[in-house]
Amino acid sequence: LAGEAPSLLYVPDLAGPGERLRLSEDEGHYVARVCRARAGDLVSATDGRGALARLRLTAIEPEVRAEVESLERAAPGRRAVVWCGAPEGERADWLIEKLAELGVTAFLPIDCRRASWQRAARRLERWRKLAVAALRQSHRRFLMEVHPPLAIEAALGALNEPSSRCIAERGGRHPERASAGPALTVGAVGPAGGFDDGERERFGRAGFEPMRLSDGQLRSETAALAWAAWWSAGPA
Amino acid sequence: LAGEAPSLLYVPDLAGPGERLRLSEDEGHYVARVCRARAGDLVSATDGRGALARLRLTAIEPEVRAEVESLERAAPGRRAVVWCGAPEGERADWLIEKLAELGVTAFLPIDCRRASWQRAARRLERWRKLAVAALRQSHRRFLMEVHPPLAIEAALGALNEPSSRCIAERGGRHPERASAGPALTVGAVGPAGGFDDGERERFGRAGFEPMRLSDGQLRSETAALAWAAWWSAGPA
Repeated sequence: LAGEAPSLLYVPDLAGPGERLRLSEDEGHYVARVCRARAGDLVSATDGRGALARLRLTAIEPEVRAEVESLERAAPGRRAVVWCGAPEGERADWLIEKLAELGVTAFLPIDCRRASWQRAARRLERWRKLAVAALRQSHRRFLMEVHPPLAIEAALGALNEPSSRCIAERGGRHPERASAGPALTVGAVGPAGGFDDGERERFGRAGFEPMRLSDGQLRSETAALAWAAWWSAGPA
Repeated sequence: LAGEAPSLLYVPDLAGPGERLRLSEDEGHYVARVCRARAGDLVSATDGRGALARLRLTAIEPEVRAEVESLERAAPGRRAVVWCGAPEGERADWLIEKLAELGVTAFLPIDCRRASWQRAARRLERWRKLAVAALRQSHRRFLMEVHPPLAIEAALGALNEPSSRCIAERGGRHPERASAGPALTVGAVGPAGGFDDGERERFGRAGFEPMRLSDGQLRSETAALAWAAWWSAGPA
């Protein structure tokens, strides 16, 4: 350990300098077994809500304990929410990981006429763990939220905030550069069988602009990922 | 079957109208069992090199036979090649599928100082099958080539064609829109541990411009995919 663990630790409750805390089992294992850290070593941690802290390890056994040496907070920057219809099989697992790596703010599974997230309730906890792993891996300070599935109407009803809205469609326009401001950007991607005409119309009425992500037909999870990559590459 | 199978068939040898052919086992199974097609039905097929053909099925049992009704060829358009260092574990499998869906022209695994594609030789056949599946799924006419691994120097030595070249780097510039022309675009992505300084310098001397794909640290396969999404969203 060259004074710092290669991954950022995730510590959901970080108060401020001087705080003494016990690392969770996962984080403790990583620090003690993977990094082979010792008491006195420094590690970095985030609470997933913008804090970046330096922790001094005070004990490794029987559990990993640390003291917060310094802590600074970042304000949320640009925000992106992915609304995604159900892809085939277990493809959502890696999608969640990739969206979190790319810095997406929240993932909202949406139930559509042609496909619903029947097994999503059982996957939520797994997905949240994948989001935490990606946060650590990609050294991000904001943890991607993973929401339970909503029907399209309910999702639209809850979208009160002014936002830039797009829907992935092969017939749409090529994307321009993503917004630089702190505003919210929402990207909607259809399920494995696509949105039906009524759903597309409903999105259109809610101001979702068709965006063409590729000249080929993309699977749901590929489109969601391509959209997130487009957003992530925009001006930070 | 509404007169046409939902996936494009892959028939590597397509001569021209009037030709009679036997579908491969995979394609025959798809047509007969998945689509439940009958003799007389029409299906679309590509040879993965630009041809799009309409086939009339002439027999389903004991093997699927067809006659080419019409065939037209497209010239290759924009081309992108992904040079990719080895990611962790089996992550290359889905990367190959996604790159092929996004229309990437070729995938070149590159051996780097910090990671080599030790098991790649055994995976080549599997990867090529994944590329074919993605071709069918995304209705593309050009099959992504999957090359055997090369060392960086060998890859650079073989790159004689004028091309736009970039290397994924967190400290690079935000990408502009991808090139509209038929020119070749090459994107290099480091392995799990990243390129080392000497390798980065070597790429720099060969004209690879650093490109920043996200404000976070991306895994190799995520960076390769984000780069391909950027290219794919460019003007067709």
